[in-house]
Amino acid sequence: MTAVDFRPPGFENNDQKPIGYGRMLRKEDARFIRGKGRYVDDVRLPGMLHLAILRSPLAHARIVRIDTSAAEAHPKVKAVVTGAMLAERGLAWMPTLAGDVQAVLATDKVRFQGQEVAFVVAEDRYAARDALELIDVEYEPLDPVIDVRRALAPDAPVIRTDLEGKTDNHIFDWETGDAEETERAFASADVVVSQDIVYPRVHPAPLETCGAVADYDRVSGKLTLWSTTQAPHAHRTLYALVAGLPEHKIRVIAPDIGGGFGGKVPIYPGYVCAIVGSMLTGRPVKWVEDRSENLISTGFARDYIMRGEIAATRDGKILAIRTHVLADHGAFNAQAAPSKYPAGFFGVFTGSYDLQAAYAKVTAVYTNKAPGGVAYACSFRITEAVYLVERIVDRLADELGMDPVELRLKNLLKPEQFPYKTKTGWVYDSGNYEPTLRKAMEIAGYHELRKEQAERRARGELMGIGVSFFTEAVGAGPRKHMDILGLGMNDGCELRVHPTGKAVLRLSVQTQGQGHETTFAQIVAEELGIPPDDIEVVHGDTDQTPFGLGTYGSRSTPVSGAAAALVARRIRDKAKIIASGMLEVSVADLEWRKGAFHVKGDPTRAVTIQDIAMRAHGAGDLPEGLEGGLDAQICYNPENLTYPHGAYICVVDIDPGTAKVKVRRFVAVDDCGTRINPMIIEGQVHGGLADGVGMALMEMIAFDEDGNCLGASFMDYLLPTALEVPDWETGYTVTPSPHHPIGAKGIGESATVGSPPAIVNAVVDALKPFGIRHVDMPLTPSRVWEAMQGRPQPPI
Amino acid sequence: MTAVDFRPPGFENNDQKPIGYGRMLRKEDARFIRGKGRYVDDVRLPGMLHLAILRSPLAHARIVRIDTSAAEAHPKVKAVVTGAMLAERGLAWMPTLAGDVQAVLATDKVRFQGQEVAFVVAEDRYAARDALELIDVEYEPLDPVIDVRRALAPDAPVIRTDLEGKTDNHIFDWETGDAEETERAFASADVVVSQDIVYPRVHPAPLETCGAVADYDRVSGKLTLWSTTQAPHAHRTLYALVAGLPEHKIRVIAPDIGGGFGGKVPIYPGYVCAIVGSMLTGRPVKWVEDRSENLISTGFARDYIMRGEIAATRDGKILAIRTHVLADHGAFNAQAAPSKYPAGFFGVFTGSYDLQAAYAKVTAVYTNKAPGGVAYACSFRITEAVYLVERIVDRLADELGMDPVELRLKNLLKPEQFPYKTKTGWVYDSGNYEPTLRKAMEIAGYHELRKEQAERRARGELMGIGVSFFTEAVGAGPRKHMDILGLGMNDGCELRVHPTGKAVLRLSVQTQGQGHETTFAQIVAEELGIPPDDIEVVHGDTDQTPFGLGTYGSRSTPVSGAAAALVARRIRDKAKIIASGMLEVSVADLEWRKGAFHVKGDPTRAVTIQDIAMRAHGAGDLPEGLEGGLDAQICYNPENLTYPHGAYICVVDIDPGTAKVKVRRFVAVDDCGTRINPMIIEGQVHGGLADGVGMALMEMIAFDEDGNCLGASFMDYLLPTALEVPDWETGYTVTPSPHHPIGAKGIGESATVGSPPAIVNAVVDALKPFGIRHVDMPLTPSRVWEAMQGRPQPPI
Repeated sequence: MTAVDFRPPGFENNDQKPIGYGRMLRKEDARFIRGKGRYVDDVRLPGMLHLAILRSPLAHARIVRIDTSAAEAHPKVKAVVTGAMLAERGLAWMPTLAGDVQAVLATDKVRFQGQEVAFVVAEDRYAARDALELIDVEYEPLDPVIDVRRALAPDAPVIRTDLEGKTDNHIFDWETGDAEETERAFASADVVVSQDIVYPRVHPAPLETCGAVADYDRVSGKLTLWSTTQAPHAHRTLYALVAGLPEHKIRVIAPDIGGGFGGKVPIYPGYVCAIVGSMLTGRPVKWVEDRSENLISTGFARDYIMRGEIAATRDGKILAIRTHVLADHGAFNAQAAPSKYPAGFFGVFTGSYDLQAAYAKVTAVYTNKAPGGVAYACSFRITEAVYLVERIVDRLADELGMDPVELRLKNLLKPEQFPYKTKTGWVYDSGNYEPTLRKAMEIAGYHELRKEQAERRARGELMGIGVSFFTEAVGAGPRKHMDILGLGMNDGCELRVHPTGKAVLRLSVQTQGQGHETTFAQIVAEELGIPPDDIEVVHGDTDQTPFGLGTYGSRSTPVSGAAAALVARRIRDKAKIIASGMLEVSVADLEWRKGAFHVKGDPTRAVTIQDIAMRAHGAGDLPEGLEGGLDAQICYNPENLTYPHGAYICVVDIDPGTAKVKVRRFVAVDDCGTRINPMIIEGQVHGGLADGVGMALMEMIAFDEDGNCLGASFMDYLLPTALEVPDWETGYTVTPSPHHPIGAKGIGESATVGSPPAIVNAVVDALKPFGIRHVDMPLTPSRVWEAMQGRPQPPI
Repeated sequence: MTAVDFRPPGFENNDQKPIGYGRMLRKEDARFIRGKGRYVDDVRLPGMLHLAILRSPLAHARIVRIDTSAAEAHPKVKAVVTGAMLAERGLAWMPTLAGDVQAVLATDKVRFQGQEVAFVVAEDRYAARDALELIDVEYEPLDPVIDVRRALAPDAPVIRTDLEGKTDNHIFDWETGDAEETERAFASADVVVSQDIVYPRVHPAPLETCGAVADYDRVSGKLTLWSTTQAPHAHRTLYALVAGLPEHKIRVIAPDIGGGFGGKVPIYPGYVCAIVGSMLTGRPVKWVEDRSENLISTGFARDYIMRGEIAATRDGKILAIRTHVLADHGAFNAQAAPSKYPAGFFGVFTGSYDLQAAYAKVTAVYTNKAPGGVAYACSFRITEAVYLVERIVDRLADELGMDPVELRLKNLLKPEQFPYKTKTGWVYDSGNYEPTLRKAMEIAGYHELRKEQAERRARGELMGIGVSFFTEAVGAGPRKHMDILGLGMNDGCELRVHPTGKAVLRLSVQTQGQGHETTFAQIVAEELGIPPDDIEVVHGDTDQTPFGLGTYGSRSTPVSGAAAALVARRIRDKAKIIASGMLEVSVADLEWRKGAFHVKGDPTRAVTIQDIAMRAHGAGDLPEGLEGGLDAQICYNPENLTYPHGAYICVVDIDPGTAKVKVRRFVAVDDCGTRINPMIIEGQVHGGLADGVGMALMEMIAFDEDGNCLGASFMDYLLPTALEVPDWETGYTVTPSPHHPIGAKGIGESATVGSPPAIVNAVVDALKPFGIRHVDMPLTPSRVWEAMQGRPQPPI
């Protein structure tokens, strides 16, 4: 067998794999490019049944009656289950990660279009779908509440009548920063700019929809659940706490996952239905969403209506920022936000700037929309925060008549200010911002671009240049500061070196396509000198891995990456003691050069990590009192988050005739600290930039006034393709995190966070001749056209 | 779901399960009694092929030619493989656990009847078997060497012509003890007794034969092998070292195993064939032996021809014992003996007695029989050693005219002599022998039995009373003293307590029916106060468990049992620190009462282990500097073996007309130190006693002079049934092991080791009126009858 040889651009030397950090092809691609990945839908168990979910066609209605008799009579149907049946077993409602409750199957009312009403378990997927049509549900329609402002009106219908004593649609108000101090800063300012900004509701839209195979073994009482989850251990504990299943009798397996982007953090009703279906029938049960179900019912992101205000001196010194946000959480508050941060990490809306004061208030509201608030490729609301600050800074530049780059350079935090505590209490661990922005300007040829723009503008062409600068907060998180449902964000990691010197690394985090099997092998390789191909990375299986809270918010490298490096160092420390015994010298006389301990000053005497591994397993004596084996474990909790940053420059052209925006160039300079595999980093950046193009120009989950979802298929919810994106121009700087053992920061989401404001800033810049100050995303041709005509923007 | 309620005799209180040691039903029985165990043959993978092995009909022959063309033409055949094809890939030979090599498929010669010659992989089991008959092998018969004395003759044909320079059939000579000192003791003795004693070749004959399912994934390069192995990790390392497969890409799974008894320690050619078959075809391949294949080709035990000599004073003080053994190892030396002990633990042939000197020489020899020497329910040759000493001690008693019990009581080691170093260098860790023998006498009513015997004998009835006393050496073993193929006998163990306080214990050892899932849960329960049902015990899967050398020689409780207790104590130590933080008192102010830490002197303040588990996973702060999680691991290597002992008394009646032996009563008093689950201990003893009845009275793998196996089916190789065994009368004493953290010793093999001499002693005792001094096992009616007639014993 020979490995498939494919060499993408940028991979210069595939044959010399690094033993440690450096460019190498992803180990997992061997299976992915052959179509041999194993996703939930590839799990086929003997006797497996199939589950389909009946969903509400209405956004808000009382359930009068459900008649399942015809469905039950279908010859291939094994079970038909309604909310009433679940309620009898206390399973009709489940807690959400935000501490709310969500209906598994609706009992009293349906609260959004697409809500789960009943499910069928049948011999095959076709029969299950057919039987759904045999279920007769009588609904009494209620007034749907779609707009967040309407939801807050005193006379609005109360959506969450299930919550005892609930008389409105308000979820929470959350404040950060100092309102009075900010008010004083605003009062002293020369210039104040205010802008209403909407971050529309979007969907992570992963390649693979959600699904599960539940296999409850009635004999052992053990439940095995293959599911599309980003957080297997957290899910296991939740199933234990909620369903009363004993935690040691639950195995959650996240096999290959076709993209998560935050959308696979929550527990969806479908998972619970699959479990119930398997327990009821005693057979394995598979549930896999179709695309439409995924788009209408699984976690949405954003849906923030923000008023941003910025105060500055006349010469461009930014003094303060404040904002009030109306957050549309849909019918159930299901976001995966830490308990102490109900609006997630929105607190970093102060951006990368040196401010005197800042204040934000977030008001979260129920509406008759699907539950939202998933952390779609951002650490809990950072995308919204960065978009807000980068748009209003651009608005300020416009107001002041300053170049947006100049305004940023003037206000960026200086290297000597780090670690820097923001006015909202976040401590940025490190940063060196100006070189990053300068590098982006250099790659883009910023000043030449401005000249070109002037020339083109003179010719009536609509060319725009947009800049954004962002600081991300990733790697949740320090135990004292954050938790989800009371569980702190520790991450376990285990490393076992086998007798022959091959190794297995067991991670609590797992991959949804980020290349963990490669990156983590490289981390261990760097520390121990074992080639990455000799290191098996195991993840995504609660039976095989230590506890941890999962992969989201770019936390894998900042948290588990640190754990992996530290656990490898524990192995190295032990190996050193064994080596001292083997070489009959003191530990102090040994020096480590990648992969071996050498006797100082004697080039002929050394033992490799492989020699040591065999010895550790009994091939000869060990130093007195030392335990055998070459295994170590760790439970890692970081001191702080890590704070990657970046500077992005976007060039757009707008067709004056059609108002179609074309991204001509996009320069992205990222700083994620130490770079483990630059190839994977670039891949992550490329993906995030495409995300940004989609959100800025095309994507929006819109609803009509009845609450019908207008983005229930890829005909309606548009994703960017190769046609919409330019050749990315990337660069990097390196500012290692001081508290991370290898200085790495996490790169998974930077581009998703940082690119939308650069694109929107570019479009607004292009539209300057029209006197336009702001256009809300998505910048579809119709919306840009209407703006050019001075008319209000259409829904999409 | 309700648990099945079955209450066997002796289980008084099923509803009050102990949280710790005590009688409780086996957790695993829930699946076993429902037929829901999952054995290798239950593994059915999509696309799975079936493998059958062509075996030699001759014991010794040159292979002239193999024509596989007709088999290859079979429409359902996917591959036909011969030794020559394996040889091209360097895979025709594999190392054995004793450091010899064994043919995977014969190339040059066949060396025993049943040897593997070729294999077929086909769409189903039937086609594979059919195709075997289409393979045409031309043999040139050679002179078979069946008798071990013949094998040592200078003119004997050389069996192992494959070994370079080998000109005879001698394998090794191994000596222990001091020959000169022993000679002096013999010279000074009043009485010397010599007896030739044969321990026949027997077979473990487990309920489940050997088998494997190999699944080689060509994409990931990962091999998953379900196999009937007692030592998954050792097998994995061997596959890595031998086949060159990377160790981290091999997963060995021992699912439920239907009995091992030492016979599933070696790697058999069938496992390797299954692996090769899967790699060749790219599909999963199943190989499962039939009963006949199991009996003729997998590991045999015993086959020792021993001359035992004992020297004593006239008044019954035993001075010395010596012996020379001819050990028949068959065609390949495949025993699982530690490198430093080629004759295993035969060195404990000094028994439980206070000797002045001892000496043994073991000469191992190749013959044209299947490879033997497996440690069938004994720690490597202890069964033979105990049988030898207990027979010659009885012979001595007869010679001296002493009661065999009196002779033993006079010579047993005294409690104050422990730890006791034998004349062959073994250090018995503890013992208190006399109370054990006295208890057996009391249960049996020994003196009344002797009276009864005198009365019956006077009436011409043949009643016999047999006694044995044994010391076992179990729990291999201290790293400095023993290893297998250079791998020391460390055992890893991991314990993980989940957030909700349920736990999972991962063991390197695994079960073949001994009840590990229950016993080990009880060990952890005793230490942590977590109910056994809340503790999942995981074993038998190299991907899920830490490294260790497997289950044999009763080593699970002595080695992994110690590891489990110690790892639980590590958890408890960490829990105490967490508790001190939760209760805001110093660690010194806490006291542990099963399951909770209490503040000393304040009965109102306590935290349970479950509270602590949730806190450890982040539900609140931990003391500064403490890692989160509640996991621990250990790699345990014992200081010494543990030495259980026991006293057995057997009463037999022999039908004077048919010479049929009936075991009327059997009293077994065992001392295995601390008793974790007395019910499981009793079950182990019952099984071993039945083993002993079988070996003493019925079982023997005999061969005719051409080397044809005469025990190739259960029609020929007889196993005891309920008809042949009495109601066992068991008792116990408790002498804890001083170096084992909970004082336990291991009980799996005591009865197999200790019962045959008691039975044979009883039979010889019954036959005293005939002047018979010894009859070799098995004591079948024909052999006893011939002995009664003063004629030589027939083969079986």
